[in-house]
Amino acid sequence: MSTELFDLLGRDDRRFSPFCWRAKYALAHKGIEFTTIPVRFTDKDKLAFSGQDKVPVLRDGDTVVSDSWNIACHLEDTRPDGPTLFGGPGGRRLARLVNHWFDSAGLRGVFPLLFPDIFDIVLPEDLDYFTRSRLERFGGKTRALFAAERSEQRLHAWRASLDPFRVMLEDAPFLCGEAAGYADYVVASVFLFGRQVSPWRLAEPGDVMYAYRERILDLHGGLGRAGPAFY
Amino acid sequence: MSTELFDLLGRDDRRFSPFCWRAKYALAHKGIEFTTIPVRFTDKDKLAFSGQDKVPVLRDGDTVVSDSWNIACHLEDTRPDGPTLFGGPGGRRLARLVNHWFDSAGLRGVFPLLFPDIFDIVLPEDLDYFTRSRLERFGGKTRALFAAERSEQRLHAWRASLDPFRVMLEDAPFLCGEAAGYADYVVASVFLFGRQVSPWRLAEPGDVMYAYRERILDLHGGLGRAGPAFY
Repeated sequence: MSTELFDLLGRDDRRFSPFCWRAKYALAHKGIEFTTIPVRFTDKDKLAFSGQDKVPVLRDGDTVVSDSWNIACHLEDTRPDGPTLFGGPGGRRLARLVNHWFDSAGLRGVFPLLFPDIFDIVLPEDLDYFTRSRLERFGGKTRALFAAERSEQRLHAWRASLDPFRVMLEDAPFLCGEAAGYADYVVASVFLFGRQVSPWRLAEPGDVMYAYRERILDLHGGLGRAGPAFY
Repeated sequence: MSTELFDLLGRDDRRFSPFCWRAKYALAHKGIEFTTIPVRFTDKDKLAFSGQDKVPVLRDGDTVVSDSWNIACHLEDTRPDGPTLFGGPGGRRLARLVNHWFDSAGLRGVFPLLFPDIFDIVLPEDLDYFTRSRLERFGGKTRALFAAERSEQRLHAWRASLDPFRVMLEDAPFLCGEAAGYADYVVASVFLFGRQVSPWRLAEPGDVMYAYRERILDLHGGLGRAGPAFY
């Protein structure tokens, strides 16, 4: 049975989607051998079989699953004997809460800081689409406007917003405890994404979150270090 | 074996501490009969036996536990057969994350909105202490300054920050699923606290969070409705 993950592609084989990173870590966590199928922003046809047009999409034998959260649940349900992603039913439910919360706070909050640089790592053939669709999503706000608004102060405020995670890392190497779990992959995906798209550093050496990022990068045979990165 | 909870006291028998609410809900969740011992801000002597000076403190037979999180863990560990507060080890760890995160975001964020009104529900004999200690904590910021800074706009921004919880409540009555769990008591404590200290409404009828607040108030025989409230 083959397992394939459809994975967003950027310049120089960058695979930078934070949502695809979550799926790749979840697969590796379960010890599943998988291949990735690179997909450009304008390659939507490649995903038609999934009945929607967003990555990540998992083809797991005869089963097709889209959306990173659904993929994690599918893997936990079909491989109950592998290392757990959630640590039980209570953990699954709260991992979903962390997922929603982090997407609406941590990830959305970092986006304006990294956005102006993403244009440079999007493939040339995707640039028109990327520019147009983001302009639409952000109510006409251009790359130049985002660039003018970003500041060291905003970056520091974003870093400070990670304090609750720093507290959790005082007594364990991962947010989920001694071993990483899906909530870790949700939060860490911002770092995996960030280092591939922008030289603006989301964490600096000396910060607990930097050491955490390094631990996450080292997991599963250094999975997160694949491809080029700014730092 | 008797079980006593030392519980912060305000005017008209208001028991408004959000941290004490978490402990009271955790006790009720486990089906434990308990009595509360009211404690004023300047009643610290009453807590000396616990080796520290903050409520909540639980005296559970011969065991003394302070801090709301420690109390929840103590109850889960000593009453493993009662309804679960965490739903397994993964759930416990992420409940702690939700706890830290919500304290540093949701609860800290709401404080400036409610703070000016708390003076009116603090007992007269505690007012000097309360005024002095809060002035210290907030770098000299006075009640009048907090009152001048609060606005409907800030209240609406705070309400909007609850969106990740609204998403969770789309497919279940509680954040933890079909049954409430400790993460619910953490988040809901802001409403239990809020309605007792200020007429500024943290949720309005028609909002998913208002219906959620009502469900929480109804739990455990209407535990949360005890004592006077503004709404």
